[in-house]
Amino acid sequence: MDIASLIGLIGAVGMVVGSMIAAGGLGPFIDVPAILIVFGGTFFAVMYKCTMPIFLRSFGAMAKVFMPKAANKEDLIAKMVELSDVARKNGLMALEGQDVPDAFFSKGLQMLVDGADEAKLVKQLNEEIKAMKTRHDEIHEVIRGWIDIAPAMGMIGTLIGLVQMLGNMSDPKAIGPAMAVALLTTLYGAFLANVLFGPILAKLEGYSASEAVYREMVISGLRNIARGESGRNVQEQMVAVMPPKLQTKLMAA
Amino acid sequence: MDIASLIGLIGAVGMVVGSMIAAGGLGPFIDVPAILIVFGGTFFAVMYKCTMPIFLRSFGAMAKVFMPKAANKEDLIAKMVELSDVARKNGLMALEGQDVPDAFFSKGLQMLVDGADEAKLVKQLNEEIKAMKTRHDEIHEVIRGWIDIAPAMGMIGTLIGLVQMLGNMSDPKAIGPAMAVALLTTLYGAFLANVLFGPILAKLEGYSASEAVYREMVISGLRNIARGESGRNVQEQMVAVMPPKLQTKLMAA
Amino acid sequence: MDIASLIGLIGAVGMVVGSMIAAGGLGPFIDVPAILIVFGGTFFAVMYKCTMPIFLRSFGAMAKVFMPKAANKEDLIAKMVELSDVARKNGLMALEGQDVPDAFFSKGLQMLVDGADEAKLVKQLNEEIKAMKTRHDEIHEVIRGWIDIAPAMGMIGTLIGLVQMLGNMSDPKAIGPAMAVALLTTLYGAFLANVLFGPILAKLEGYSASEAVYREMVISGLRNIARGESGRNVQEQMVAVMPPKLQTKLMAA
Amino acid sequence: MDIASLIGLIGAVGMVVGSMIAAGGLGPFIDVPAILIVFGGTFFAVMYKCTMPIFLRSFGAMAKVFMPKAANKEDLIAKMVELSDVARKNGLMALEGQDVPDAFFSKGLQMLVDGADEAKLVKQLNEEIKAMKTRHDEIHEVIRGWIDIAPAMGMIGTLIGLVQMLGNMSDPKAIGPAMAVALLTTLYGAFLANVLFGPILAKLEGYSASEAVYREMVISGLRNIARGESGRNVQEQMVAVMPPKLQTKLMAA
Amino acid sequence: MDIASLIGLIGAVGMVVGSMIAAGGLGPFIDVPAILIVFGGTFFAVMYKCTMPIFLRSFGAMAKVFMPKAANKEDLIAKMVELSDVARKNGLMALEGQDVPDAFFSKGLQMLVDGADEAKLVKQLNEEIKAMKTRHDEIHEVIRGWIDIAPAMGMIGTLIGLVQMLGNMSDPKAIGPAMAVALLTTLYGAFLANVLFGPILAKLEGYSASEAVYREMVISGLRNIARGESGRNVQEQMVAVMPPKLQTKLMAA
Repeated sequence: MDIASLIGLIGAVGMVVGSMIAAGGLGPFIDVPAILIVFGGTFFAVMYKCTMPIFLRSFGAMAKVFMPKAANKEDLIAKMVELSDVARKNGLMALEGQDVPDAFFSKGLQMLVDGADEAKLVKQLNEEIKAMKTRHDEIHEVIRGWIDIAPAMGMIGTLIGLVQMLGNMSDPKAIGPAMAVALLTTLYGAFLANVLFGPILAKLEGYSASEAVYREMVISGLRNIARGESGRNVQEQMVAVMPPKLQTKLMAA
Repeated sequence: MDIASLIGLIGAVGMVVGSMIAAGGLGPFIDVPAILIVFGGTFFAVMYKCTMPIFLRSFGAMAKVFMPKAANKEDLIAKMVELSDVARKNGLMALEGQDVPDAFFSKGLQMLVDGADEAKLVKQLNEEIKAMKTRHDEIHEVIRGWIDIAPAMGMIGTLIGLVQMLGNMSDPKAIGPAMAVALLTTLYGAFLANVLFGPILAKLEGYSASEAVYREMVISGLRNIARGESGRNVQEQMVAVMPPKLQTKLMAA
Repeated sequence: MDIASLIGLIGAVGMVVGSMIAAGGLGPFIDVPAILIVFGGTFFAVMYKCTMPIFLRSFGAMAKVFMPKAANKEDLIAKMVELSDVARKNGLMALEGQDVPDAFFSKGLQMLVDGADEAKLVKQLNEEIKAMKTRHDEIHEVIRGWIDIAPAMGMIGTLIGLVQMLGNMSDPKAIGPAMAVALLTTLYGAFLANVLFGPILAKLEGYSASEAVYREMVISGLRNIARGESGRNVQEQMVAVMPPKLQTKLMAA
Repeated sequence: MDIASLIGLIGAVGMVVGSMIAAGGLGPFIDVPAILIVFGGTFFAVMYKCTMPIFLRSFGAMAKVFMPKAANKEDLIAKMVELSDVARKNGLMALEGQDVPDAFFSKGLQMLVDGADEAKLVKQLNEEIKAMKTRHDEIHEVIRGWIDIAPAMGMIGTLIGLVQMLGNMSDPKAIGPAMAVALLTTLYGAFLANVLFGPILAKLEGYSASEAVYREMVISGLRNIARGESGRNVQEQMVAVMPPKLQTKLMAA
Repeated sequence: MDIASLIGLIGAVGMVVGSMIAAGGLGPFIDVPAILIVFGGTFFAVMYKCTMPIFLRSFGAMAKVFMPKAANKEDLIAKMVELSDVARKNGLMALEGQDVPDAFFSKGLQMLVDGADEAKLVKQLNEEIKAMKTRHDEIHEVIRGWIDIAPAMGMIGTLIGLVQMLGNMSDPKAIGPAMAVALLTTLYGAFLANVLFGPILAKLEGYSASEAVYREMVISGLRNIARGESGRNVQEQMVAVMPPKLQTKLMAA
C-alpha cells in the first residue's frame, strides 16, 4: 500500500470537493450531460488513440499506483552477496534452485547456471529491460491520452454550451446558469487532467524508472558473480547507486 | 479491423454530437462558412506545408488506422525457429523459396541465401528500418500539420467573426447569435485537432514503433540463423522482447 | 515549381480572405497602424534576433519553397551505377571530368580522382553535410522568429488597443469598433504565424532533411566505388533507403 | 548563505505584496478557502504524484536554496596538486588519511589507497555521479509538481467560484466581489508557480550541475594521480573547465 | 557593432511606442506601480533563480549583443595555413611567439610548442569548448529567466488590478480606466519577454554556437599541423564547414 498515493488522492479530491461544498453545496457542480461529454468523450477518444489490449491493460496498471510491487534494493544486495559467496565456494551450479525475490533475478540466475557467458547474460537481460520500458511506455501513453484529451473535451463542451446559450438570450435570467453549466465541462477536464491522471502518470513513470535501476543492479550483481568476484566487491559496486548515508550503513554491515 | 479505433471514433464523435443534440439540436452547430475556413483553410495550409506526393499519401495512411497490417510476433518466432532448424540440417541454401509472412523477412532471407555475411545483412536491414521510420515520420508530420493548424484556423475564424460583430452592434439582439457563429470555428478547430486527428497520430506512431520492433526481431532471428544457432537459442533471444507471461508460455511450448 | 506550395498558399489565404469578404467585405479587416505594429514590429524584432547577413539570406531561402532544387534520387542511383562500372573497367582516374548532377557529388568524385582514401572521403563529406545542416538551421531559426514573435506582437497590439479603448469609454458606440480594431493585431499575428510562416518552416525543414538523405546516398555510393564494388552491389545498397515498391522496380531494371 | 536567493525572494515577494498594498491593502487579497484549495490541493496532489520518502525529503532540499554546500573548485585544484606531489614522492599509500574537503573525494582517495586501478576508479565514481543525478532529479520532479499543479488548482478554484457566482446573479452588487474572490485562486497559483517554486527549481538544478562538474574534476584529478602525473600536469588539466581569466591566475600561481 | 541588433531593437521598440503614440499619446501607457511589479518583480525573481555572480555577469553578456567579438573564419584559415608552412619548414618550435588572433588559438599553439601530442591537445581543447558552453548556458539561463518570469509577473499584476477593481465597482466610470491600468502589466510582461529579452537570448545562443564552430576549426587546424600536413591539406579540411561559394573562392586563392 503506497501511503502517499492514498493520502494524496483523498486530500486533493477532498480539497476540491470541500471547496465546492463551501461554495454552496455540490448540487450546482454536477451535470450529467457535462460528465458524459468529458468523461465519456475522453474515454472513447483515448480508446481510439491506442489499441484495445493496451487500453484495457492500462486500468490495471493505474491500480498499481496504490499497490506497488515492493522491490527492496537493500535485500537485493544482501541476497546477491550471499549468492556470490555460494558461487565462489561451490561453483555456479550451486546457484540452481536458490530462492530469489523476483522473476527477472531468477531468469538471470538460471542463465548463469545454464552456463551463459557474461556478454550473453548482459545483452539478453538488457534487452529485457528495454522491452519492459517499451511496454510501460505504451501504458503511460494511454494515461497521457487522458491528460491531453480531457481538457480538450472540456473546452469542446464549454464551446457547445456557449454556442447554445448565445443563440437563446431572450431570457436574461437564464444566461448566468447556462454559462455556469457551460463552464462545468472545463472544470471537469481540468480536474481529470491535473488531479486524477496527471499524478498517476508521474508516479508510474517513477516506479518504472526505479524498477529499471533495480534490474540494472541485478545485472551488475550477476555479472560480478559470473566473474567470480568476492561478496565484498559485489556489494561495493552495487551500493554505488544508493544514497551516501545508506552506502556507509550497508558497507559497515 | 482494429476494434478500438472503430468503437473509439464512433463513441467520441457520438458523445460530442449527442451533447450538441441534447443542447437543442444540431442546427445551431452547423455553419458552412465556418466549415470552409477551418476545414478548407487547414486542408490547404497543410498541403502548403508538405510536398504533394506525401500529402496525398497521408490519406491512405490514415485509413490504416482502421485496417492495420497484422504482424504477429508469435508466428514470427515459430517461423524463425522452423527456418533455423532447416538451415542447420540442410544449409542456408535450403532457405530459398521458403514461405515467409512479409516482404522484409523475405528480403532478409534472400540475402542469407545469396551468401551475405552477418555484418552486411544487419547493416542493410537496419538501413531499411531507418528508411521506413523516415517515411513514416513524413506522414506523421502531415497529420501533425492538421493538429497544429486546425485550432489556429479556428481562432482566426473566431477573430474574423468577432471583428465583424463588433463593427455592427446597432442591433443588440444580433450580438448573441453572431458571437455563437464566431465561436463555431474554435469549436471545429478543437474537434479536428483533438477528436479526429490527435488520436490518429498517436495510433500511427504506435503502429510504426511496433513494426520497428517486429523488424528488429526479424534481424535478430536471421543473424542467429546466419551464425548457425539452434532453434532453441533463436527462440530464447527473440522472446526477450515479449511480456514475461508470454515468454513463459512460448518457451514451454 | 512545387505545386503543393502554390495551391496550398493560394488556397489557405483564399479561405481566410474569402471568409472576411463573406463577413461583409475586406474593409473592416484592414488597418494600417495594426499592420505596422505586427508586420513591422516582427520584422525588426526578428532582425534584432539574428545577424544581418543571415536575416537577409532568409528571404531568398523562403522563396525556395516555391522553386525547390530538384534532386532526383533515382537518377543519382543510375549515375552512381554507371560510374562504378567505369571505375572498375578503367580505374578511378577515369572518373575525372564525368558529368554529375550537383556540386556535392562532383566534389566527392574529385576527391576520389585525387586519390583520397575511403576514410578521408567519408569524414570530409560528412563534415560538409553537418555544415550544411548548421547553415540551414540558422535560416530556420529566422523563420521560427517570425512564427514566435508575430503572435506576441499581435497580443501587444491588442493590449495597446484595449488600454486606449478602456481609457475612453465616454461614447458607448465607439467601444465596439475600437475593440474590433484592437483584435485585428491578434488576427494578423495568428495569420502570419500559422498561415504564412509556419508551413514555410516545415517545408524547408523537409527539404533540408531530404537533401541530407540525398547526400548520404552520394557518400554511400562513392565509398562503394572506392572499394571497387560492382554496379549491382552499389545499387543494392543505395536503394535500401527507397520505399519497397520503388526498390523492386529499380532492382528489376 | 546564498545572498541572491535571500534578496531575490524578499524582493520578489515584496514587489507583489507592495503592489497589493498600493492597490488598497492586503485585505481583499486574502481568502482562506482560496488558500486551502490552491495550497492544500497542490500539497496533496504533489504528494499523490510522488512517494512519501521523496516528498518529505523535498522540503529539506528546498531549504538548501538558502544554505548551499560550498564546494570551492580552486581549493579542490590546490588540494589535488598537493596530493599528486605526495603520491609521487611517497607512493599512493601515503594518501591514506589525508584530509580532503568532501566525502566523494575521500571515497575516491580511499579507492586509490586500496589499490583500485584507474578504470575501476573512474567507472565506480561515475556511477556515483549518475546515482546522485538520479536522486536530485527525483527531488526536482517534486518541485516541478508544485510548478505544474499550482496553476491548475488555481484555475479549478476560479472555475468553482465562477460556477457558483453565475448560479446566483440575483444581486448584481455581489457579482463584482464574487468574481474578485474567484480570481484569487488563479493569482495564488501563478504566485506559487512563478515566484516561489519556479526559481527554486532552477537554482537546485544549477547547484546539481555545478556539483557534477566538481565531482568530474575530482575524478579527473584522481585518475591523473593514479597515472603518476606531476602536480603541474594535474593542475593544467583541471583548470580547463574554469573561465579563461581564472585559468591564467591559477597557472601563474 | 552589430548593425542588425541596433536597427532591430530601435525599429521594434519604435513600432510599439509609435503605435502607443498613434493610439493617443504615451501617457496612458505609463504607470509606475505597474512598472515596479513587472520590472522589479522579475528582476528579483531572476536574481532568486540564479547565483549572484552569474546574475551580475549576465548584464555584461547582454551588452555583447551590440558589440560582438569579431572572430573571422577566413582570417583563421589563412593564419593556420601560414603556420602549417612554418611548422613544416622549421619545426613545431618555430611556432613559438607567433602572433595569433585569440587566446584559445594561442593556448593551443603553446601546447604544440610544449610538445603535447595530438590526442592530449584535442582532449584538452575540447574540454575548454565544453566548459565555455557550460559558462554561456549559465548566462542564457538568466536571460531565459527574464523571458519566463516577466509574462508571469505581468499576469500577477493584472490579476491584482482586477481583484481590486472588482471589489470597488460602485463607480461605473472608474471601471474602464482601472481595467486599462490592470492590463498594463500584461503589456509590459509581453514587451519584456518578446521584444527585449527574447531576441537577446537567440542572438547570444547564435554567437555561442558560432564561437564553438570557430574553436573547432582551430582544433582541426592545430591537429593537422601536429601531423605535419601541408598548408593545402589544412586549408582543404578547414573550409569544409564554410558555405560552398566561399569554399570555391578560398581554395582558388
